[in-house]
Amino acid sequence: MLLGLKRLLIGRPMKTNELGEEKLSKVKALAVLSSDALSSVAYGTEQILLVLVTLGTAALWYSLPISVAVVCLLTILVLSYRQTIFAYPTGGGAYMVAKDNFGTSTGLVAGGSLLVDYILTVAVSTSASTDAITSAFPVLHEHRVLIALVMILLVTILNLRGITESATILMYPVYLFVAAIFLLILGGGYQWLTGNLHAQTHTPAYGAAVPGITLFLLLRAFSSGCSALTGVEAVSNAIPNFREPAPKNAALTLVMMGLILGVMFMGISLLAYAYGIAPAVKETVVSQIASAVFGRGIIYYLIQAITALILFLAANTAFAAFPLLAFMLAKDRFMPNMFMVRGDRLGFSNGIIFLGILSAILIISFGGETENLIPLYALGVFIPFTLSQAGMMKRWLTKKPSGWLVPFLINTVGMLTTLTICLIFLITKFTQVWTIFVFLPIVIFIFRKINGHYRDLADELRLDVEKEKPQPKGSVIVIPVSGISQVVKNTISYAQSLSDDIVAVYVGFSDEEMKRMEEKWEQWNPGVRLIVLRSHYRSIIKPLFKFIDTVEWKKAETDHVTVMIPQFITKRWWHNLLHNQTSFFLRAYLFARQDVKIATVPYRLKK
Amino acid sequence: MLLGLKRLLIGRPMKTNELGEEKLSKVKALAVLSSDALSSVAYGTEQILLVLVTLGTAALWYSLPISVAVVCLLTILVLSYRQTIFAYPTGGGAYMVAKDNFGTSTGLVAGGSLLVDYILTVAVSTSASTDAITSAFPVLHEHRVLIALVMILLVTILNLRGITESATILMYPVYLFVAAIFLLILGGGYQWLTGNLHAQTHTPAYGAAVPGITLFLLLRAFSSGCSALTGVEAVSNAIPNFREPAPKNAALTLVMMGLILGVMFMGISLLAYAYGIAPAVKETVVSQIASAVFGRGIIYYLIQAITALILFLAANTAFAAFPLLAFMLAKDRFMPNMFMVRGDRLGFSNGIIFLGILSAILIISFGGETENLIPLYALGVFIPFTLSQAGMMKRWLTKKPSGWLVPFLINTVGMLTTLTICLIFLITKFTQVWTIFVFLPIVIFIFRKINGHYRDLADELRLDVEKEKPQPKGSVIVIPVSGISQVVKNTISYAQSLSDDIVAVYVGFSDEEMKRMEEKWEQWNPGVRLIVLRSHYRSIIKPLFKFIDTVEWKKAETDHVTVMIPQFITKRWWHNLLHNQTSFFLRAYLFARQDVKIATVPYRLKK
Repeated sequence: MLLGLKRLLIGRPMKTNELGEEKLSKVKALAVLSSDALSSVAYGTEQILLVLVTLGTAALWYSLPISVAVVCLLTILVLSYRQTIFAYPTGGGAYMVAKDNFGTSTGLVAGGSLLVDYILTVAVSTSASTDAITSAFPVLHEHRVLIALVMILLVTILNLRGITESATILMYPVYLFVAAIFLLILGGGYQWLTGNLHAQTHTPAYGAAVPGITLFLLLRAFSSGCSALTGVEAVSNAIPNFREPAPKNAALTLVMMGLILGVMFMGISLLAYAYGIAPAVKETVVSQIASAVFGRGIIYYLIQAITALILFLAANTAFAAFPLLAFMLAKDRFMPNMFMVRGDRLGFSNGIIFLGILSAILIISFGGETENLIPLYALGVFIPFTLSQAGMMKRWLTKKPSGWLVPFLINTVGMLTTLTICLIFLITKFTQVWTIFVFLPIVIFIFRKINGHYRDLADELRLDVEKEKPQPKGSVIVIPVSGISQVVKNTISYAQSLSDDIVAVYVGFSDEEMKRMEEKWEQWNPGVRLIVLRSHYRSIIKPLFKFIDTVEWKKAETDHVTVMIPQFITKRWWHNLLHNQTSFFLRAYLFARQDVKIATVPYRLKK
Repeated sequence: MLLGLKRLLIGRPMKTNELGEEKLSKVKALAVLSSDALSSVAYGTEQILLVLVTLGTAALWYSLPISVAVVCLLTILVLSYRQTIFAYPTGGGAYMVAKDNFGTSTGLVAGGSLLVDYILTVAVSTSASTDAITSAFPVLHEHRVLIALVMILLVTILNLRGITESATILMYPVYLFVAAIFLLILGGGYQWLTGNLHAQTHTPAYGAAVPGITLFLLLRAFSSGCSALTGVEAVSNAIPNFREPAPKNAALTLVMMGLILGVMFMGISLLAYAYGIAPAVKETVVSQIASAVFGRGIIYYLIQAITALILFLAANTAFAAFPLLAFMLAKDRFMPNMFMVRGDRLGFSNGIIFLGILSAILIISFGGETENLIPLYALGVFIPFTLSQAGMMKRWLTKKPSGWLVPFLINTVGMLTTLTICLIFLITKFTQVWTIFVFLPIVIFIFRKINGHYRDLADELRLDVEKEKPQPKGSVIVIPVSGISQVVKNTISYAQSLSDDIVAVYVGFSDEEMKRMEEKWEQWNPGVRLIVLRSHYRSIIKPLFKFIDTVEWKKAETDHVTVMIPQFITKRWWHNLLHNQTSFFLRAYLFARQDVKIATVPYRLKK
């Protein structure tokens, strides 16, 4: 039944050689990989305004120059990452680039930072999506956590089904969102140009002097705006998912994404300025613009619905990126093996499930109010940005291919810019981002620990093929018996097929019991010695252990010691409740404490 | 650490031969076994008044003749059970007596009824105890469920520690309660006789005509009063717990208990009448009497505290009786074996824990408001009462010892009375007791099912000691390998010590992988054939299974098929997370589906 449910949710298992079919075309890739970046416009402008409004609405005009700065930054990032794609056609993004150029430690900083960040992506995006829904329908506000959790569950299942299928599902909303935002920009722009604005809007005077404005505040607002750039790195991390020629397709996809993102972000910022919109507690900025431009009619609700949808799907970008990065870290033995296993539908299921669970935990522990995580999330993106570009710089300097100077300069500008932004984050938002100094060392410590274990293991298991061959020894078999029955006969028959040195052990609770057993055994005479032990504490396991210890102590040098445990296989599950699970406990204890071999001899009950 | 906690709560394990020391003296037995019966006076009178008050306070005088009837019934029960004790000195109460005289089916009705009833005892007593506390401290009212659950936990732990110790703890409160109730009766009686009643009391006129009084209502009130008799059977069920001469000591204890119970119950009823007390929603009748007699001073609070304590300890009676009955049912193979196992402190731990859990579930599902369960609980007592006496009647008729007529008549009167009460319950309180017709058949069905399984099992496992001897066959060993390493060497060495017919199996995911393995194996040449299988679905287990199936199909007739599974024992628990648990899954699947023997070969990692 469980299997049936799994089939229904995940689909039929696929063969390994079906893997090739799962590659993405450019149009699909743009949908799968850009929803995170594009959806950032839903909160990017709002983050800038939230900082500026602390000085009053007169300061809101600063959002325009700040937005221009963010778009410039976007251009730099796109150009830089375009170069990375061609330099590292097998993908890997910041982790690969940093590791390749600066060694493992730096790579792990970038990788750990990104891993944590993908979890934050899922949490922040689903929360923001829930915000878009509750802006339109305030009654749902109290069910925020539940809504966000359902979203995480859905996106997890979609990803377990496999990449191509989810891409087909995702294409429409992503393009619908682009269309919706362009419609909003065009509609709003038309109204503005024709002077046909609603009565209540009052555009703040551009360039007006604002008392109390400081560079600190402007930098803070700028760094907030940078949250609109989260997700840009997704394309370069996922190159192996593209159809051939993968690097070229990926680069084109990246540029397209940058263009669309830049236009949309600038458009929203302009509209917010034109309509004189200030951030509100209960309604998002996009919701305010939409309702100002189109009124609270069908178009407004459509825009909200699509915004909610795209934010929900932004989480999907992380679900495409996290398992790939985990796979690469596992391949380098910094994460457990299990992240290398492909599931029924060829996705890295363990990574997908792991991401789903961790982000759900984040949502629950923050009660769905993850807005405070946005700065942390943005910083977590800019650290690997910086490391990745610095890595590219070093690469150009080391390899010096023909015409290396221009790309080197591009990466240098990119690195300096992103480094500056990291510093701005640390200085202006320390209270919101300091936890990165806790998380990141812990994650890297875990990476190191795991790596250490795998190294030790490899050393320990290595075998000299020429010299080390298997060497048989003798063998002693110990059979615990609780009486004389078909089960015991069955087990002894089996033991006799393997060894001549067999001991049956019986644990009795009283003298009569022990004597009766000895007599009956003699009468049966199965050709095997019987040792009878006395238990004072009604436990079969303790005396048995002592005995096995003795045997092991005497025999382990010369012989293998095997304990043979008969075990019923009942016909119905509830029959298990009717048998004391002695064999189960015996196995568990033996396994935990002794070095003996344990053979389980099944006895299948017929009724 | 867990073990340390267990030691602290339960105490050190005891040897089986310490069992004799755990017997009860009369004084202790009265405490352990009578708290259920004696504590019934805390709610018996109230149950009568609750029915009568529906006709107004003028009808309350009927409580006096009804109480007299209840005391007569008590006398009959005590005399009847006294005879049972001597007839069945090994104990067993209703289950044993009914089974012995009418066969298994009737026995199971009595036994099942009692088992369910003990669970109700715990739930009802702890709830009533909570009532006594919240009567005195109304602020605690909202924590009813928690208070009751803590009580259940406490009484479970006390019982796991062992009978004698809990008896020592329990002696004082039981006798304190008797003293407190006698103090209340004496104090109230003195005030009444001296005419020194408080001003506000107005005793209802005795014998006054009450409009609307019906036989139905009186019978209903009478049956409600019978709830004061629950727990009387405890002594005859627990005879084996008494010091020698057990039957005589038990009979004396029973009579003593009957006397004390009768006096206390009659006393409370008289006082309730004298003080003109009507049942109230928020305060128990005993609390009202105590506060009328002594005022809300220190004596009042002491009486409430002791009442709460005795009701709490009433649950203990069930904890003494349930495991014993479960033991007897398990011995007759109607309940799982595990109820026959004595724990560290020689009590039947599984029965104790089982009772604790089930009653906690009842408390939680009724939200601590178990008053509605009282009639069901009372009926659950009177069914086995009736069956037990009928059994005794049959016994006298069958055996006809000298002077059998008087005891026969006593049992006959007893049987007819309790049967009548059962019928009264069914007629007057059907809405509250119909569930017994659901529970009881289910419980008996389960008994029968369990018994059937054990019978089948015994048939299947029976062995002819003269003719059936173990017969060795040949042996094939299959070793799944994932590469060439120390683990594989270790496993093959072991296999070679047991059999000459060994096959190593490797599952590859690609042609290169498979070829590489074959070449390396040839180079190593461990003296064992290697079979290389191809997996299309990235699962090691499926191809392996197909292979094992084939081997089994070919070999099972002539040889034992053993699958040898190497398994890491890691040095630290978290290392397990770093290994795909293939060996665990392999074992689980093999065990569930195939008939092969499974040998686990531990490989203990050093780092």
